[in-house]
Amino acid sequence: MNNDKGYTVVQRLLLNCDMGESFGSWRMGLDAEVMPYIDCANIACGYHAGDPGIMRRTVALALEHGVTIGAHPAYPDLVGFGRRSLACSAEEIRDLLHYQIGALDGICKAQGTRVAYVKPHGALYNDMMADPLILRTVLEAVAAYDSGLPLMLMATADNGAAQALGTEIGVPLWFEAFADRAYTASGHLVSRRLPGAVHHDPAQVVEQAVKLARGEALLASDGTGLLLKAQTLCVHGDNDSSVTAVRQIRQALDGIRSA
Amino acid sequence: MNNDKGYTVVQRLLLNCDMGESFGSWRMGLDAEVMPYIDCANIACGYHAGDPGIMRRTVALALEHGVTIGAHPAYPDLVGFGRRSLACSAEEIRDLLHYQIGALDGICKAQGTRVAYVKPHGALYNDMMADPLILRTVLEAVAAYDSGLPLMLMATADNGAAQALGTEIGVPLWFEAFADRAYTASGHLVSRRLPGAVHHDPAQVVEQAVKLARGEALLASDGTGLLLKAQTLCVHGDNDSSVTAVRQIRQALDGIRSA
Amino acid sequence: MNNDKGYTVVQRLLLNCDMGESFGSWRMGLDAEVMPYIDCANIACGYHAGDPGIMRRTVALALEHGVTIGAHPAYPDLVGFGRRSLACSAEEIRDLLHYQIGALDGICKAQGTRVAYVKPHGALYNDMMADPLILRTVLEAVAAYDSGLPLMLMATADNGAAQALGTEIGVPLWFEAFADRAYTASGHLVSRRLPGAVHHDPAQVVEQAVKLARGEALLASDGTGLLLKAQTLCVHGDNDSSVTAVRQIRQALDGIRSA
Amino acid sequence: MNNDKGYTVVQRLLLNCDMGESFGSWRMGLDAEVMPYIDCANIACGYHAGDPGIMRRTVALALEHGVTIGAHPAYPDLVGFGRRSLACSAEEIRDLLHYQIGALDGICKAQGTRVAYVKPHGALYNDMMADPLILRTVLEAVAAYDSGLPLMLMATADNGAAQALGTEIGVPLWFEAFADRAYTASGHLVSRRLPGAVHHDPAQVVEQAVKLARGEALLASDGTGLLLKAQTLCVHGDNDSSVTAVRQIRQALDGIRSA
Repeated sequence: MNNDKGYTVVQRLLLNCDMGESFGSWRMGLDAEVMPYIDCANIACGYHAGDPGIMRRTVALALEHGVTIGAHPAYPDLVGFGRRSLACSAEEIRDLLHYQIGALDGICKAQGTRVAYVKPHGALYNDMMADPLILRTVLEAVAAYDSGLPLMLMATADNGAAQALGTEIGVPLWFEAFADRAYTASGHLVSRRLPGAVHHDPAQVVEQAVKLARGEALLASDGTGLLLKAQTLCVHGDNDSSVTAVRQIRQALDGIRSA
Repeated sequence: MNNDKGYTVVQRLLLNCDMGESFGSWRMGLDAEVMPYIDCANIACGYHAGDPGIMRRTVALALEHGVTIGAHPAYPDLVGFGRRSLACSAEEIRDLLHYQIGALDGICKAQGTRVAYVKPHGALYNDMMADPLILRTVLEAVAAYDSGLPLMLMATADNGAAQALGTEIGVPLWFEAFADRAYTASGHLVSRRLPGAVHHDPAQVVEQAVKLARGEALLASDGTGLLLKAQTLCVHGDNDSSVTAVRQIRQALDGIRSA
Repeated sequence: MNNDKGYTVVQRLLLNCDMGESFGSWRMGLDAEVMPYIDCANIACGYHAGDPGIMRRTVALALEHGVTIGAHPAYPDLVGFGRRSLACSAEEIRDLLHYQIGALDGICKAQGTRVAYVKPHGALYNDMMADPLILRTVLEAVAAYDSGLPLMLMATADNGAAQALGTEIGVPLWFEAFADRAYTASGHLVSRRLPGAVHHDPAQVVEQAVKLARGEALLASDGTGLLLKAQTLCVHGDNDSSVTAVRQIRQALDGIRSA
Repeated sequence: MNNDKGYTVVQRLLLNCDMGESFGSWRMGLDAEVMPYIDCANIACGYHAGDPGIMRRTVALALEHGVTIGAHPAYPDLVGFGRRSLACSAEEIRDLLHYQIGALDGICKAQGTRVAYVKPHGALYNDMMADPLILRTVLEAVAAYDSGLPLMLMATADNGAAQALGTEIGVPLWFEAFADRAYTASGHLVSRRLPGAVHHDPAQVVEQAVKLARGEALLASDGTGLLLKAQTLCVHGDNDSSVTAVRQIRQALDGIRSA
């Protein structure tokens, strides 16, 4: 189903994955292997990864598999893969978003498609989640680019403040959750430096995905229940085992829907 | 007047000028001074000059003065200002055009406007004029981006081959001429290394502009007559005297039209 | 006078100035005008400004005027001119320092000279002054590059902690002060957002320079006396009036020494 | 044995390999696997591959295995991996060589070692071999950086002209040959587009390496004998099979020397 701007209205738990993160002669990610199993491809726009040729091939691959294309803009930092925070002004963030979304949209346009949502990458994503002023800036930038264009951001125990901001500015929000990460009671990810932060057992990953899809509570790191309302699940295509996990999650979620 | 895609159909000699060629903290060009007198702004897209902030401000300035916005894509070469030829494949040229046109279009979209023509910059422009295969590649890339989107290229004594290619691929062509440069009999620019290559006398520049606007023949460097069919005249905003020249050309051309 | 590694031991107040901050086709700074009046040129190394050609010409200009050459390394950020903090690890800071100092040293070597001190630029300089761990990282990087190579940093009311660190790591420190800026009682610059932060009266600038050269106390913004121990004074070559100020400061300081 | 500048004088066939061609988060090449078997590491300097951190780690790895470090400078082209020719002036080539050699030397200096030869990369290497003016430019740049510093270049049937130029300018030349490529009668590589251009049979590769080490003639593609005088053999560490080939070549060459 689409909204009146033609953008998707999410009605089931979508699988999103970072894609197109190769650069020049360097390869990263098993894009071809994972694309058949996901719903949404967050495609790098050249600032942290991706170059025009990589972007074209990734868009083509997404089209081939009927996968929705999202822009995955970042701070300008190839060496740091967009993972290092850069002290940008609100104006600079707006401008770099428009540049990158537009660049990917240009690649899309040449193939008869378009950017259908935006998910900031790495440090920009973290800064946006940590600072409401940056979230506002990102929302305003997305709304200025195209009204109705959705933003993907992180689900927490209380999506209320973010949702209020999205509604005020007129940007549909797609909250995302993780199947392979432990959560704190507030719905934030347990730091990777702590034990148990990442689920390595495939069965546990699939179980968490299914709970999220069914709207059931997870068990937070302090033992309390955590209800995350999420439209999408972030999966990974870095290596063979993560691709296997994606396939299993896909199967499990399809099982729910057909049940 | 617009074509059925909404793009301008040229009916008088338009003044085009390279704009937005500042970068970061560095300033280049008297954009604010020259914008009131031109019709078309060729805006740098970040590969040879321009960054997202400069692009935003240049688009805003063009909008303020009702100036048509063109994308001015280049080889990726900030240090060389896009003036050094880079041995790219046809595929690489297509991709870098879509990326840059799209990026500028993204900046435009956020201000409610769009890219209305494409003019390659520097070495990419020269390579396109020297090699019909590259011209074909550029035309196909522009057509793939948006059918009906015009390409600006150089007028010579015989525009026939280029025009045939443009018609085949479905790209309207805007041929441009120069008021401040001497021409050879074939309608190519006299090399800057030769005496008399550049007209320094303002009266001579204005006279050449008027002849071009009236469709009258110029005097080529070998003394023969040269008829250039051009839709647009390339002017410069580098310094005070070039801005003065633009103003005088503008006045002279307006005089023709109101006469 | 030189230390046993052949590096300068400062015995009078040296004038240092950021130089070589042009990039590609873009010009910044009146390097040729200001070089005759300064002692030390902080030369950009390509990460915030400067490219190999600019660096070569700036080194040649410094050599022509007998000016000591310093490396002016920065975070990798051309668009932001190195003024935006980038969240780098200690290892990343060490590496980017060695790369940039080495690159400038390579340009120097081809002209028979060498880098004789290091002064971090912009956000890297500010981060170094604000965070003792970053200062330690910078000092260790400079010492690893060449023992005896001096670091230029900001003088404050109490240089003790920095001096102790420099002594521990074995890096001579050149503290710098400003003649055109107001100071707080702790010897930090009054924020540019506050009134009176910048001295615009040339006489006041020269007076502050003379006081610093004579080791006399300045008047801090809270009215108390402030004694800054500085080996060097940072001057600017951005525009005509700053070059005039440099010339006047030079004259005044030469007057002290010949008196 | 070293020359009077302390640089290696080659007395047996050295194995050289491109190293440090990862970039940021992207990996390329099995550096750790191949380093134990080679004599000379051509280390990327940041323009086509390599960043300061990659360079540091590659230098450390070379030091650990007693491998001689060479600078592997390139045209500035990360996206194209330095394989696309860029129309640079002689001055630009000199400057980019000094910058890159210096940058790697800076990384080396921090680890107590230094750049011991120069081998241009990719399109710059090809342009240098194809155009004697560019070869002269490269030689002059290397000599200006440090007299006695060797240049690695391609051996052909007649090294005479290159050798004369090297002698004139005072740069020791290390000619390199390939064990896995077929040669034309003039000692140039058979184009990869032709059948038989690359030897895939490990035995054939080792046999060609041994012949080159013994100074025996190879069989050129036209069936004639080809005598290549080479100081070094270029090997590859891209994948498992190339690493196996390097190990076999190493064994075979060590067998010759101990025989």
